[in-house]
Amino acid sequence: MYVLHYAPDNSSLIVRLALEELDQPYETRLVDRRTRQQDSAEYCRLHPNGLIPALETPDGAIFETGAILLWLSERHGALAPQPGSSERVAFLKWLFFTSNTFHADIRMHFYADRFAGAPEAIPAFDAATRGRIARHLTILDEMAQTRPTWFSPDSSSAMTLYVSCLLRWLALYPKGGTDWFDLAAYPALRAVAAAMERRPSARKATLAEGLGATIFTKPSHACPPEGSAT
Amino acid sequence: MYVLHYAPDNSSLIVRLALEELDQPYETRLVDRRTRQQDSAEYCRLHPNGLIPALETPDGAIFETGAILLWLSERHGALAPQPGSSERVAFLKWLFFTSNTFHADIRMHFYADRFAGAPEAIPAFDAATRGRIARHLTILDEMAQTRPTWFSPDSSSAMTLYVSCLLRWLALYPKGGTDWFDLAAYPALRAVAAAMERRPSARKATLAEGLGATIFTKPSHACPPEGSAT
Repeated sequence: MYVLHYAPDNSSLIVRLALEELDQPYETRLVDRRTRQQDSAEYCRLHPNGLIPALETPDGAIFETGAILLWLSERHGALAPQPGSSERVAFLKWLFFTSNTFHADIRMHFYADRFAGAPEAIPAFDAATRGRIARHLTILDEMAQTRPTWFSPDSSSAMTLYVSCLLRWLALYPKGGTDWFDLAAYPALRAVAAAMERRPSARKATLAEGLGATIFTKPSHACPPEGSAT
Repeated sequence: MYVLHYAPDNSSLIVRLALEELDQPYETRLVDRRTRQQDSAEYCRLHPNGLIPALETPDGAIFETGAILLWLSERHGALAPQPGSSERVAFLKWLFFTSNTFHADIRMHFYADRFAGAPEAIPAFDAATRGRIARHLTILDEMAQTRPTWFSPDSSSAMTLYVSCLLRWLALYPKGGTDWFDLAAYPALRAVAAAMERRPSARKATLAEGLGATIFTKPSHACPPEGSAT
């Protein structure tokens, strides 16, 4: 059975949703961010970089959200165009774009204080980062307008789950610094997020992590039954 | 036939090496960085983010180095543990780590002026970035010490080609700002890079892009027969 090492409303949420969509049994282990458990020697044996999530599998622990999504989709033959499919090209390029460009810039925006390196450097750094994120959103919305089978409101995929969670977090974090983001400006992305939050997987995740209603299109901060989101 | 849109000594080099290792025929199209051809409307139809490389395939254009490597390895059944293999977990997590953490931080180090957002913010930003890169190198060297089949001096893989190129660029860029990096501190990575630069694929790439000898372990700046590396 899978073991998902998670913190509420962290990137582990994306993996939880994928496991729910795949209808796979899994256990969860809370990583307590309040005691910085992700930096413990025990957790770093699963993930040397100390990031959440990590997933224990029969083939060992896997980390990196994009890698976990891809591996689960291959193993269970769902949530993505499979190897050999002509749609694999488009799926893989947008998955990597989401992982190493969109998500990477979002993380820098959320933790601008760490990445900027000095307090006085934060405003310029964060303005540049937000500018890039806005361009990524436009590019992703244009992609979504073409409604590929692996990115449409009609079904869930590794990409719809991944992007919907990132849209949620852009509306919530950093606290007090989200005014610039307006999901309504990206109607094709909004349609996907609206469809994803109506699925049973979202309701299951909401209960488990205390996420509230309309978790992707009009989210509120988590009130988790255990652990801390930040 | 594949068409690789490249600039000398850019990330397209990683894809060129993979195509050579796979013994696949391909054409190249120079993207002239001196005229910022990567920002042209024509190139942005291949890659909306204007980054190099892009690869034209029978299933459409693909971008993102990690995505291209993964797709080529699946299509030709080589350079990576295949889907269904028990080694796929480890391969995918380290490929994504290399793409969205190691490579992403390296790009920020090379273009610190753009990412920092303001000239006075550059030193603190770049110091923080270099600190992360040093930790990534240590983590990757520890992984390499375990000599997985997909990351050893004995054979090439998507990961050995990818990491070897990144080690090359850390020794060369930014010009005048490479003193902090010493490949000798990472012996397992150095052994892989040394083995990769002795392969015929490296010699082919050297001729095509003017890379000089010992392209990974003791590189010199490119003198390309066409185009510009920067």
